[in-house]
Amino acid sequence: MPDYALGIDLGGTNLRFAAFRPDGRMLDKVSVPTNIGSGREALLQAIVGGVAQVRRLRGSDLLLGIGIGVPGFILLEKGIITKSPNLPGLENFAMRDELQSRLGPPVRLENDANAAALGEKWQGAGQQVDDLVLLTLGTGIGGGIISGGSVLHGYLGMAGELGHLTVDPSSDVLCGCGATGCLETQASATAIARMARESGLGEVTSAQVYTLAIGGNAQARTVFERMGRALGLGLSLLINTFNFPLYLLSGGVLAAWDLFAPALLDECRRRSLTFRQTDTRIEKATLGEEAGLYGAARLALP
Amino acid sequence: MPDYALGIDLGGTNLRFAAFRPDGRMLDKVSVPTNIGSGREALLQAIVGGVAQVRRLRGSDLLLGIGIGVPGFILLEKGIITKSPNLPGLENFAMRDELQSRLGPPVRLENDANAAALGEKWQGAGQQVDDLVLLTLGTGIGGGIISGGSVLHGYLGMAGELGHLTVDPSSDVLCGCGATGCLETQASATAIARMARESGLGEVTSAQVYTLAIGGNAQARTVFERMGRALGLGLSLLINTFNFPLYLLSGGVLAAWDLFAPALLDECRRRSLTFRQTDTRIEKATLGEEAGLYGAARLALP
Repeated sequence: MPDYALGIDLGGTNLRFAAFRPDGRMLDKVSVPTNIGSGREALLQAIVGGVAQVRRLRGSDLLLGIGIGVPGFILLEKGIITKSPNLPGLENFAMRDELQSRLGPPVRLENDANAAALGEKWQGAGQQVDDLVLLTLGTGIGGGIISGGSVLHGYLGMAGELGHLTVDPSSDVLCGCGATGCLETQASATAIARMARESGLGEVTSAQVYTLAIGGNAQARTVFERMGRALGLGLSLLINTFNFPLYLLSGGVLAAWDLFAPALLDECRRRSLTFRQTDTRIEKATLGEEAGLYGAARLALP
Repeated sequence: MPDYALGIDLGGTNLRFAAFRPDGRMLDKVSVPTNIGSGREALLQAIVGGVAQVRRLRGSDLLLGIGIGVPGFILLEKGIITKSPNLPGLENFAMRDELQSRLGPPVRLENDANAAALGEKWQGAGQQVDDLVLLTLGTGIGGGIISGGSVLHGYLGMAGELGHLTVDPSSDVLCGCGATGCLETQASATAIARMARESGLGEVTSAQVYTLAIGGNAQARTVFERMGRALGLGLSLLINTFNFPLYLLSGGVLAAWDLFAPALLDECRRRSLTFRQTDTRIEKATLGEEAGLYGAARLALP
């Protein structure tokens, strides 16, 4: 009887499920709307329903365990989400234990960016190394640190809050975390749209700023150059701290790599002797939106 | 026959040796001038001579191994110092293997701040935790990261270059590493003296700035407040990255704790949700200048 692990990605929009063989091969994938507006009990039932659906698809295969990637701060030991701006109904609720009692197999919670980093290490761009950092560039910026092959958690599970590294102390742009000058406010998709607006490009999305920049618009190009500088400064902090061989970037913004990478690399060279002297790599992640599913499933394996 | 490990601190001024029992008890201590001006061979002979001196003091005790803390970048795998501004004669020299062949027992090299962090974990302020960061505040600023009880090295041994975290991107003060805005240029003893000079206090040492501040001098007090802000920003980067329970500070500047700590803690609260929500501790290290000797000896133990 072949066995498998189940990875779940609890996103603000979609709740995604995928089954994996222990060797990393993806089997089935299921997606349902998260519908967080319907409340906590509806969400728990949607999770239970999704798991049942995958189990039916797997027939008599043995489900080894379930990992869930969640956008928020998690108290690992207790399996509690302490802070999750996109899933307010789940805060300070003993989610892991509740799901485990409803589902049966062992359940593990993990921050979504940590799960994505672990997924990239397991089956993505980080397979050849034991140490890497992943930055996920989206509406916000998440971070996951893999050290010695495992997620670096810190003592409460809050390590890797890399979107909240201060990269511009003089900035007065307020971040959701309550601080100013956070990497997230200077290099996320949201930041790109804001900087474009400030440059007089009007109400545009980051994708539209990209199109404008590709078309030669000078202000749009400057926005990506500023974003690259901020991201490069953030990466230099990580390189000087960790001396890891690999730093990965993921998210839709990566399409604009050619526009922001020169400023990013220039800033890393300027701010890190380690970067200048070594073959440290900064690369695109390869699993895309599925990285978190891979990592969540990996958590459920021995 | 009782056994012991030998820790060596290769400082720019003094070459210090100490023997330790495996349980952490310090036995003998020997110090000789480093005399780096006399060249590499003289230094190697001074090391061999110091080790012989400790061995005579230990009689028939068994020397298990020798650890050496060195101020500089070390290629761990090869046992080579690649960059050491204070010990230029040792750069790109196979120091570990040469010493091991002259001395006999296994020799390990380590960056001096890493060794100090390990010493604090072993017998100092970090005994109760497995994860901590130490910042050594002196002429420069060094960093050592202990993760899971061991030194976090990175893939080449260059992790923990925390004096070179950018904390003020708008600064034009040039650091020895080639960058501007490094923590080292904003919060070291050298930085305190420079900021005092810029405030019109003339050519003063950091100790004199301290005396002035204690006496109520407003400019001198502002210097420590600025230093505290820079250090707090640097610590917030580490807290958001690691979520470790303990961050230690060491160095003579710590005497001025009461002058810089309020600004430091204010900045950590401002820039780290993790700091605000948890019982993260920022404390003084306790082993002083001997931390590196302890850590170097610990390296030589299984």
